[in-house]
Amino acid sequence: MYFHALFIFSLLIISSSQAAVLDFCVGDLSLPDGPGGYACKKPSKVTSDDFVFSGLAAPVKLIPLIKAAVTPAFAPQFPGLNGLGISMARLDLAIGGVIPMHTHPGASEVLYVVQGEICAGFISSSDNKVFFKTLKQGDIMVFPQGLLHFQINSGKTSALAIVSFSSPTPGLQITDFALFANDLPTELVAATTFLDAALIKKLKGVLGGTN
Amino acid sequence: MYFHALFIFSLLIISSSQAAVLDFCVGDLSLPDGPGGYACKKPSKVTSDDFVFSGLAAPVKLIPLIKAAVTPAFAPQFPGLNGLGISMARLDLAIGGVIPMHTHPGASEVLYVVQGEICAGFISSSDNKVFFKTLKQGDIMVFPQGLLHFQINSGKTSALAIVSFSSPTPGLQITDFALFANDLPTELVAATTFLDAALIKKLKGVLGGTN
Amino acid sequence: MYFHALFIFSLLIISSSQAAVLDFCVGDLSLPDGPGGYACKKPSKVTSDDFVFSGLAAPVKLIPLIKAAVTPAFAPQFPGLNGLGISMARLDLAIGGVIPMHTHPGASEVLYVVQGEICAGFISSSDNKVFFKTLKQGDIMVFPQGLLHFQINSGKTSALAIVSFSSPTPGLQITDFALFANDLPTELVAATTFLDAALIKKLKGVLGGTN
Amino acid sequence: MYFHALFIFSLLIISSSQAAVLDFCVGDLSLPDGPGGYACKKPSKVTSDDFVFSGLAAPVKLIPLIKAAVTPAFAPQFPGLNGLGISMARLDLAIGGVIPMHTHPGASEVLYVVQGEICAGFISSSDNKVFFKTLKQGDIMVFPQGLLHFQINSGKTSALAIVSFSSPTPGLQITDFALFANDLPTELVAATTFLDAALIKKLKGVLGGTN
Amino acid sequence: MYFHALFIFSLLIISSSQAAVLDFCVGDLSLPDGPGGYACKKPSKVTSDDFVFSGLAAPVKLIPLIKAAVTPAFAPQFPGLNGLGISMARLDLAIGGVIPMHTHPGASEVLYVVQGEICAGFISSSDNKVFFKTLKQGDIMVFPQGLLHFQINSGKTSALAIVSFSSPTPGLQITDFALFANDLPTELVAATTFLDAALIKKLKGVLGGTN
Amino acid sequence: MYFHALFIFSLLIISSSQAAVLDFCVGDLSLPDGPGGYACKKPSKVTSDDFVFSGLAAPVKLIPLIKAAVTPAFAPQFPGLNGLGISMARLDLAIGGVIPMHTHPGASEVLYVVQGEICAGFISSSDNKVFFKTLKQGDIMVFPQGLLHFQINSGKTSALAIVSFSSPTPGLQITDFALFANDLPTELVAATTFLDAALIKKLKGVLGGTN
Repeated sequence: MYFHALFIFSLLIISSSQAAVLDFCVGDLSLPDGPGGYACKKPSKVTSDDFVFSGLAAPVKLIPLIKAAVTPAFAPQFPGLNGLGISMARLDLAIGGVIPMHTHPGASEVLYVVQGEICAGFISSSDNKVFFKTLKQGDIMVFPQGLLHFQINSGKTSALAIVSFSSPTPGLQITDFALFANDLPTELVAATTFLDAALIKKLKGVLGGTN
Repeated sequence: MYFHALFIFSLLIISSSQAAVLDFCVGDLSLPDGPGGYACKKPSKVTSDDFVFSGLAAPVKLIPLIKAAVTPAFAPQFPGLNGLGISMARLDLAIGGVIPMHTHPGASEVLYVVQGEICAGFISSSDNKVFFKTLKQGDIMVFPQGLLHFQINSGKTSALAIVSFSSPTPGLQITDFALFANDLPTELVAATTFLDAALIKKLKGVLGGTN
Repeated sequence: MYFHALFIFSLLIISSSQAAVLDFCVGDLSLPDGPGGYACKKPSKVTSDDFVFSGLAAPVKLIPLIKAAVTPAFAPQFPGLNGLGISMARLDLAIGGVIPMHTHPGASEVLYVVQGEICAGFISSSDNKVFFKTLKQGDIMVFPQGLLHFQINSGKTSALAIVSFSSPTPGLQITDFALFANDLPTELVAATTFLDAALIKKLKGVLGGTN
Repeated sequence: MYFHALFIFSLLIISSSQAAVLDFCVGDLSLPDGPGGYACKKPSKVTSDDFVFSGLAAPVKLIPLIKAAVTPAFAPQFPGLNGLGISMARLDLAIGGVIPMHTHPGASEVLYVVQGEICAGFISSSDNKVFFKTLKQGDIMVFPQGLLHFQINSGKTSALAIVSFSSPTPGLQITDFALFANDLPTELVAATTFLDAALIKKLKGVLGGTN
Repeated sequence: MYFHALFIFSLLIISSSQAAVLDFCVGDLSLPDGPGGYACKKPSKVTSDDFVFSGLAAPVKLIPLIKAAVTPAFAPQFPGLNGLGISMARLDLAIGGVIPMHTHPGASEVLYVVQGEICAGFISSSDNKVFFKTLKQGDIMVFPQGLLHFQINSGKTSALAIVSFSSPTPGLQITDFALFANDLPTELVAATTFLDAALIKKLKGVLGGTN
Repeated sequence: MYFHALFIFSLLIISSSQAAVLDFCVGDLSLPDGPGGYACKKPSKVTSDDFVFSGLAAPVKLIPLIKAAVTPAFAPQFPGLNGLGISMARLDLAIGGVIPMHTHPGASEVLYVVQGEICAGFISSSDNKVFFKTLKQGDIMVFPQGLLHFQINSGKTSALAIVSFSSPTPGLQITDFALFANDLPTELVAATTFLDAALIKKLKGVLGGTN
């Protein structure tokens, strides 16, 4: 016989009612959040389902122009990630599909090619040097935090990639949308990008921007 | 005369009503917590007593089988530690006493032998290499974050140690309890530890586990 | 024509109602705070004004004895900084003005001389070595976290400096005030500073301290 | 015409020779490393290939007993991850395959099921509560830092999963190996696990341990 | 008499030869660096000059097209900042001058208007919402980490601003340069920005890009 | 029989030659250090002795004036702590002994009274509020990072305390020494402390300061 005692260690055990900040902090989106993330759901209400997310399982409807889609599993979609320093997303790219130039202000990213062939790259901030390569199924590539990067389906079939981030809330800033899909006055866009006003107004029109 | 002014510096002083996030954040366990710890008690209600904890002063009742006990002073027990990156615990080991194999998922540990002699060690994750040594009174030993480690009274008197952690909520996962003191189905335990089902059921019975 | 699609990317966009922890967390000083800072104002209520602070624009009334003043723009004064790892303050020094020996317990500091000439320095903790220099307009100097430092107007005109900190809540502990402007008993001050009781009582009297 | 100047911005650009700590730090495994990771490869020698890793592309030879394999892409295998707060690994599980109970001392983990069906779970440190669930293709699950967890192929086909970690060096400590595949004396294993000596010696023999 | 002892505390003092990691770590740019910054200059060679930088004191030559200039005091220029979590830069804007759309991948920024009037703003990643405002002398504005932002001289005199960052190596990625001032193939730029090839080639020609 | 395979898991194991940044980083004081600590000793040369330190075991010679001594076990003394976020020190206080006002610029502290009675306290930076209390054997008290604090033997026997810090290099700045035990010119000390020159010169003489 290997153990002899009933209820041994009982004094060792920190009661679960006090242990909320131990181990995990499933986000409660109904409470005020803070700089480090969402407030924690009460431990007594946490179940296995809080740690599982099925929203990346099915392909989503692609966006016609880019023939692609990004499906995030960040803390707002998957609150079980809250406070754990990591998140995921799914990239679907049809033939010719493109994820346009974008940044994640709060995280580095690793991409894994589930199927297809993807040309991906990023631009260094120090000297504008470009690093890009064509990735085959099973290849992984890392994109350092905050840098402009892109993914293009460079193959003859649709492509699927899974990307991970070093934060539960990496953010996603697509340059075209940041510049043209809001009410930033045309003259400010022109002054800060050196594109001419007519082009900016056209792009604003297409992307739903105003001013 | 060294100072000449009354109320000098008054414009320098940040009013205490606004200064809640300065200096400290005594945990208020009645409020929702977040990934970084408990919400802060109002500064106006904080007293010297919030920064002092007497729960490690007296020896606690030992657990018969292991002839030992662990008494934590983590943030749930000592909310004055909240947010300050440190905590403590007390280890009591009678002659032959043992703190079984365990990990602290969220912190490194330093142990100080207050009295007696303790054989302590940890196992590296990279190559399963074991580092252990017999410690005399006054010796200290460090256990890197998250690694399996243990402490055994190897002397002829009872032993007392004070351990410190690099987090107010280091966590404590005792391997035997994690495997056998819950409702994890026997077949899952068997499949993931390669112990046989009969032994697992016996251990579950002893430790209060089910399934 | 450069863009062809209306409402493209719509599936890419994380809805703003869920995005509270992305990008920024303007502090809501009416809610309980936590170890990482204030809880976040609801994103729907955040405006451009939350990210702008005008409290450093005007010179403040100087304190007669030191002929100087410190005006903070820390998170309590400027909640838009909350969670962003940075803050500022303004130093005004008349001719002969002095910012007395002090520390910032939670941040390193960089000082920029807007006008005038300032002699500034800090004291290393490892060997009490002093690093100080006279700074001209446009010079910058860094003061490592937590170390005693000072600034003196060493020129023939008034001086203005802008200082930045590596935390939204750097704290400010002026040694003379910490020792003499509170109710710490004279005998404790004497025992821990080796100044004599008569001098301590005189300084306490001047600075508003008791006991 | 949108731009008029040649070589504009030239004063803005930080020369690449000085910019080593900007953006990324590809690990140079030939140099001494530090607490934060490997020293950086010289920027002038960094190419696109440094950010791509193909070692997860092909299935590896499975280990007969567990009918499974783990292939890491941590910083030692993929130095481009160095300092970026993230890494990946590939899990192959044949029918009946198992990744035994283990921890990652330095990171949280997210698992994505590329194909097949996987039963996965973890054990909380605060009350030994078990969280587990059967995951279908495309499901993701998060395992908080440092906690015991496992993955089992619960389907009728082989399974493939990609896991990501919140550190470039998450570590991997498999409980059975940590206890039985080294020279930790049998009496110490017995004293700290309550398994009997005969069983320990048998397991040591199987796993290559001694003493 | 207040002190009686010569050489008291001598046992308290950590010898400077061992104290390199205490207090500060002035960068030695001749040594390999790591993820956390440059290796430290030997403490015995550190002088007051290491903590002072005069490179922001004088206005620099403006770039004709943008009528502006950015002068950084990041760790590569001012190694005394290394490891201290903060840095600075100087912005000079002539009448009509502009700092074009850019990001700092590794830091939040606070801007202080030393003289003149500046219209500054940033774009949120979560919903492309724009926050901008005209700043007068003495106003400060914060720009959260990694987000696109800009500064324009909106007044009738030249303007000067001092900006601080929450990192010694914040990085600086100017969108126009990242897209057009390197060898990223025109077809990749076109595919990821939806600008047409002729325009891209024109911009590349102006900014010195190829391909 | 519980295990059937020889050499199972072999593909799981990350070779130790590549695993330097996993688990721990024992400091090699002969190599250049960085902002995060010392460079790592080669893993093949690391032994159990690297994780054990006996320098706190014996009482040290007390300093006559303060009737006390501080013995550090920081990373420079105990390189096994390097990178692990924690350190320790031993405080010996004879009857009437005092640890004078000081700060630790880089860490919070927890004190445990091994024997005797100690009056300890700290001063908040936000409003100079003092928190102090008399501690009995076994009591613990926390001192938040960077704040002025002190310890006095308030009992009728000698006292011994063990203190832990939330950093391997907490630093130690004793106010009296920082002000008077170096070559900081008397006029600068006078200007920044408002003590008169004669007193400063006397204190400098006693403590070995000059100028």
